[in-house]
Amino acid sequence: MIEIKRSQYNPLIVSGDIRPSRRDFEIIGVFNGGVVRIGDEVLVLLRVAERPVSPHPEIVLAGVYDDKKCRIVLKEFAKDDSRNDFSDPRLITSSGQTYLTSISHFRVARSKDGVNFEIDEGISFGPGSAYETFGVEDPRISFIEGKYYISYVGVSSFGVTSCLAGTEDFSSFERLGVIFCPDNKDVVIFPERIGGKFYAIDRPSSGFSGRDEIWLAESDDLRYWGNHRYLMGVRQGYWDRLKVGAGAVPVKTPKGWLEIYHGAESQDSYCLGAVLFDLEQPWKVLARSEKPLLRPEMDYEKEGFFGEVVFTCGLLCEEGKIKIYYGAGDRSICSAEVLLQEVLADLGF
Amino acid sequence: MIEIKRSQYNPLIVSGDIRPSRRDFEIIGVFNGGVVRIGDEVLVLLRVAERPVSPHPEIVLAGVYDDKKCRIVLKEFAKDDSRNDFSDPRLITSSGQTYLTSISHFRVARSKDGVNFEIDEGISFGPGSAYETFGVEDPRISFIEGKYYISYVGVSSFGVTSCLAGTEDFSSFERLGVIFCPDNKDVVIFPERIGGKFYAIDRPSSGFSGRDEIWLAESDDLRYWGNHRYLMGVRQGYWDRLKVGAGAVPVKTPKGWLEIYHGAESQDSYCLGAVLFDLEQPWKVLARSEKPLLRPEMDYEKEGFFGEVVFTCGLLCEEGKIKIYYGAGDRSICSAEVLLQEVLADLGF
Repeated sequence: MIEIKRSQYNPLIVSGDIRPSRRDFEIIGVFNGGVVRIGDEVLVLLRVAERPVSPHPEIVLAGVYDDKKCRIVLKEFAKDDSRNDFSDPRLITSSGQTYLTSISHFRVARSKDGVNFEIDEGISFGPGSAYETFGVEDPRISFIEGKYYISYVGVSSFGVTSCLAGTEDFSSFERLGVIFCPDNKDVVIFPERIGGKFYAIDRPSSGFSGRDEIWLAESDDLRYWGNHRYLMGVRQGYWDRLKVGAGAVPVKTPKGWLEIYHGAESQDSYCLGAVLFDLEQPWKVLARSEKPLLRPEMDYEKEGFFGEVVFTCGLLCEEGKIKIYYGAGDRSICSAEVLLQEVLADLGF
Repeated sequence: MIEIKRSQYNPLIVSGDIRPSRRDFEIIGVFNGGVVRIGDEVLVLLRVAERPVSPHPEIVLAGVYDDKKCRIVLKEFAKDDSRNDFSDPRLITSSGQTYLTSISHFRVARSKDGVNFEIDEGISFGPGSAYETFGVEDPRISFIEGKYYISYVGVSSFGVTSCLAGTEDFSSFERLGVIFCPDNKDVVIFPERIGGKFYAIDRPSSGFSGRDEIWLAESDDLRYWGNHRYLMGVRQGYWDRLKVGAGAVPVKTPKGWLEIYHGAESQDSYCLGAVLFDLEQPWKVLARSEKPLLRPEMDYEKEGFFGEVVFTCGLLCEEGKIKIYYGAGDRSICSAEVLLQEVLADLGF
């Protein structure tokens, strides 16, 4: 039986640890952070979600990045206007246009022990293009050939796109554009070339198929992607029966590329499990977790801005242990540890 | 006032001109052909849609390509089964899975006069991968650096993808894979590099935005695409208010890249109009048709397998004239001619 140990210090980072980017905003959650080790520090690129505090109880405010003015502007939605739909806590639908109730940016957090974090005071990377007007979300960090590449989600009225940025120091970032058309999210880039090519896992949404499943793309240069292939789908009767999407950047193990991914059982319950891809032919799925590694069980996972969610964007694999950093309830950052050997054994390797 | 002249010989190619690929199939339409001039001939790569003839009036049959067996197999749907929905003539929805009522392949037609065509007896290019199990559709031909590239739609239970194939002779073809993830269609590739890059227009469908609009992608090699940018959208109050998508391969003119595209006013009425993109910065839209160039007006356009549709995948621009080949009512191939100068003048150039 596989044993995953949640940190006794969970949640590690909560909203109260973060100062809003503006005095008229409040933090609603800090979650889904990309993770990388740099020297003796763990760096977590946090997704910080915030929203304008509304001075009127009957008015909901949303922050939207204006790519002409290059700043966030506020939009008002009246609660008693029947054209406005607030039924999903994450969304406002108004006259057919969808907005988000929060706008996210990324902020750097650093730690020597993986428990106590120093968090940057300001925005490290925020909305900055027409494809990011509703925010940037869910960063994954791949260290490739001496540089950090961040694949992240840009949300705007154009849809949900996957974007790429590069950095060497996490203080200045180069935007490398939209790498996958809408709607597509949960992109993770393998950390090295395989047979001469770069590979990324992505998650297009098809209205035609009606499914949200995992595809594989290849590239020569990380910016341009093609040869898209269907990689793995939902499984009836399993914990990942409704949706699947990549989680952390894949880890190279002797048995294959290990990917910790998320699966949804229903619209509002997300678990984490493992999949192993062939080392040389990453389009081959070798095995998947029969049962999730991590399921929302603790109060801090079951409750939250969007409860019943454990969701990862990053992990560290060091000294035979996988330390998964995960967002809990779309509200806080937690961690859990499991032996690599146990995960592989659970997959039959 | 711009004057477009339909050919007096319309429709040029109809179902009766085509022999089905199997004796138990019938042709339901020939439409949306890619067009290229080769020497003194016009080559039209026809989209041929066919379906199995059902021996039982209460059973609907669908042909589906089985990518393991490498052949088309038949699927049965009972008309009186309440889980089956036949309300859209193009689709069968059965227990949440969507199928097509027809399966399309491509067939070469050649003509010296642009009116009388010799049509190949067999399939020139048919379903051949897991992404094409419901057929290949809507080919566009770009002649680039000495080779023909066909961007086309692959439909399968994985969704609606855009694929690429290369050929030098239209008798053997090389599959170059899925170039855009689902759902994405109406891809046309500019026929030459612009500022060192290849460009393609595509049409992702975003469930989040709820819109079907036109994007631009760039590439170094035609196989891998990135730097996706939103290019142009629907226009309220216009003939293209519901959907837009590329039509023919863009034509280089002194005033800009001229693209004949389709717009939908409603779910079941498609017109053709023009847009001009900047010659050196094709992400800049210079002008769009206020009114459509072509609107379904003739019986052969208003009626058909899916009526009220004029839709182009190819044209010739020769001697100052644009000759648009278009699918009418998802049933036949027609043509119409207009002076390039008039189209540009109508756009204000």
